[in-house]
Amino acid sequence: MSGTLKLKYYPYTLELKHTFTVASNSRSSTPAVLTEIEYEGYTGYGEASMPPYLGERHESVAQFLAKVDFSGYKNVFDLETILADIDAIAPGNTAAKASIDIALHDLIGKIMNQPLYNILGLNNEKAQYTSFTIGMDTPAVIEEKVEEAAEYKILKIKLGRDNDREIIETIRSITNKPIIVDVNQGWNDRDLALDMAYWLKAKNVLLIEQPFSKDKPEDSAWLTKWSPLPIIADESVQRLDDVMKARDVFSGINIKLMKCTGLREAYKMIILAKTIGLKVMLGCMTETSCAISAASQLSPLADYVDLDGALLINNDVFEGTKIVDGRVTLSGLPGIGVRKI
Amino acid sequence: MSGTLKLKYYPYTLELKHTFTVASNSRSSTPAVLTEIEYEGYTGYGEASMPPYLGERHESVAQFLAKVDFSGYKNVFDLETILADIDAIAPGNTAAKASIDIALHDLIGKIMNQPLYNILGLNNEKAQYTSFTIGMDTPAVIEEKVEEAAEYKILKIKLGRDNDREIIETIRSITNKPIIVDVNQGWNDRDLALDMAYWLKAKNVLLIEQPFSKDKPEDSAWLTKWSPLPIIADESVQRLDDVMKARDVFSGINIKLMKCTGLREAYKMIILAKTIGLKVMLGCMTETSCAISAASQLSPLADYVDLDGALLINNDVFEGTKIVDGRVTLSGLPGIGVRKI
Repeated sequence: MSGTLKLKYYPYTLELKHTFTVASNSRSSTPAVLTEIEYEGYTGYGEASMPPYLGERHESVAQFLAKVDFSGYKNVFDLETILADIDAIAPGNTAAKASIDIALHDLIGKIMNQPLYNILGLNNEKAQYTSFTIGMDTPAVIEEKVEEAAEYKILKIKLGRDNDREIIETIRSITNKPIIVDVNQGWNDRDLALDMAYWLKAKNVLLIEQPFSKDKPEDSAWLTKWSPLPIIADESVQRLDDVMKARDVFSGINIKLMKCTGLREAYKMIILAKTIGLKVMLGCMTETSCAISAASQLSPLADYVDLDGALLINNDVFEGTKIVDGRVTLSGLPGIGVRKI
Repeated sequence: MSGTLKLKYYPYTLELKHTFTVASNSRSSTPAVLTEIEYEGYTGYGEASMPPYLGERHESVAQFLAKVDFSGYKNVFDLETILADIDAIAPGNTAAKASIDIALHDLIGKIMNQPLYNILGLNNEKAQYTSFTIGMDTPAVIEEKVEEAAEYKILKIKLGRDNDREIIETIRSITNKPIIVDVNQGWNDRDLALDMAYWLKAKNVLLIEQPFSKDKPEDSAWLTKWSPLPIIADESVQRLDDVMKARDVFSGINIKLMKCTGLREAYKMIILAKTIGLKVMLGCMTETSCAISAASQLSPLADYVDLDGALLINNDVFEGTKIVDGRVTLSGLPGIGVRKI
């Protein structure tokens, strides 16, 4: 390695187009940290996005990144070693770790002058439809949001409070588009959940994400066994070592860069999940087009794609993967495929 | 994709330096097929090596390769799709499939002007010691072969007939180098096997490969549970879908390109094996430096490396990864790192 890897990072605040409500809280912005890794005239871009319920903050990411030491590596391409060392700096800090992983993947793609999907040997023409999230709200506002989402072919809706059927009926009064429902651990009764699964299937729902608490895998296993819809793990599966636990408990797993430390581990999770018969959903937080473009490099391997994060903010600072007529459309640029705007 | 992928293939016969004896047979040559895939002025090299007991022959490989159709692919880098299609041409034919996989990996590495270890993000400086195989023979010839193997730091010896202890004692009369023993399914008694495992451990043996028939996983599981040495699957695990079956049955798996269809599947097997706590051994057949150099690109991820195949023949036609003072030493050339000689 002839040059030096230089890391820079900046706090940023993602402004959400709509106040975002899940079962447990609501908010109108998401803290983020933008990273840059420079090497021999190349710059790789990365991002940490930190929804507050996951425990990372501007300060924690800054503290973590201050400990990153790139001196001593002989091969800039040796991400297996570098990222294992980054992971070992401290437990947790998964978004901070992802901000390094993404920037390094962008960097090595730029040095090789290849988009990451080529480096990974994937089919960039497999442009899948992404779901588009409609945040929890009053029926009147939900109607409005569904109208605004006309371009998107699959809707994602947060359930898990006391008005699940009302929300679905509200959407169905406007459109029969397929829906992904995300319960965010909000249900707690097996029989009611199975009733809902049948009812949702009749309403053209595609899958149910994380119906029960992550502390109740036996409930998820029961529902997965009986449900007419796939049951996808989100909170229950964060990293590679969690994937085996989803076997016989869920139909599939939702992989997000910010919870699994980035692209390299996400790719390994996909390989493991597919081998043991789990469906793969590729998800995101509210993120700029930096992290979204990174995740989209893996989308050819996914069964379900939920990469709407950059569509939900109004102060994106990157241009890269775009959602065109509802489809994930890769830019073809080297690395993660972005340019700064 | 602007150009066309053109496949050529040639029969070749590997001449063994020593007649090679395992528990079930012996031979003095191995049939091989050398492949070349051309694209836009680049040529990727591949190889099928077909030890007869695995069922492939010059004719079967030729018949398989005649069915390969590269027209219709839009992205030469999309190995995920291309190799899945190759695999679907017919069941089996794993060496024929590997000859395509290796040539395509060599090709894309050359187009990117990067050695495969960089594309995979691995540490090329992690040059491990390879074991060197001493074929079954009379004690006098074994002594001679061990003397010839002075350069190599770990010996591999085939056991599983009625003179296992005699063979080990013969080697130990000359050297105390660590030994890997490969039983090739030759044992059939649990208690004797466990006695042997203790005896072998005391003789500085590192591991035992495939002690029992692949049809007796319960015997392997029992021995793995009680043995003081790691028990490594060879015949029991061929492809990605077999890896899960090795969990709780073996301590690790021996991955060989010729039985798993090549580098892409081998890499997936390594990721899966490491995630579920299995050790990874990287093995080979008698092969030219083409297939050996290909496999060696993955060696930074392996716990044990047995890549002596090109050392066992006297008509190699490639130069690439070398064994230097017993260590696997990658060439740094693009792709699988070889040139024709």
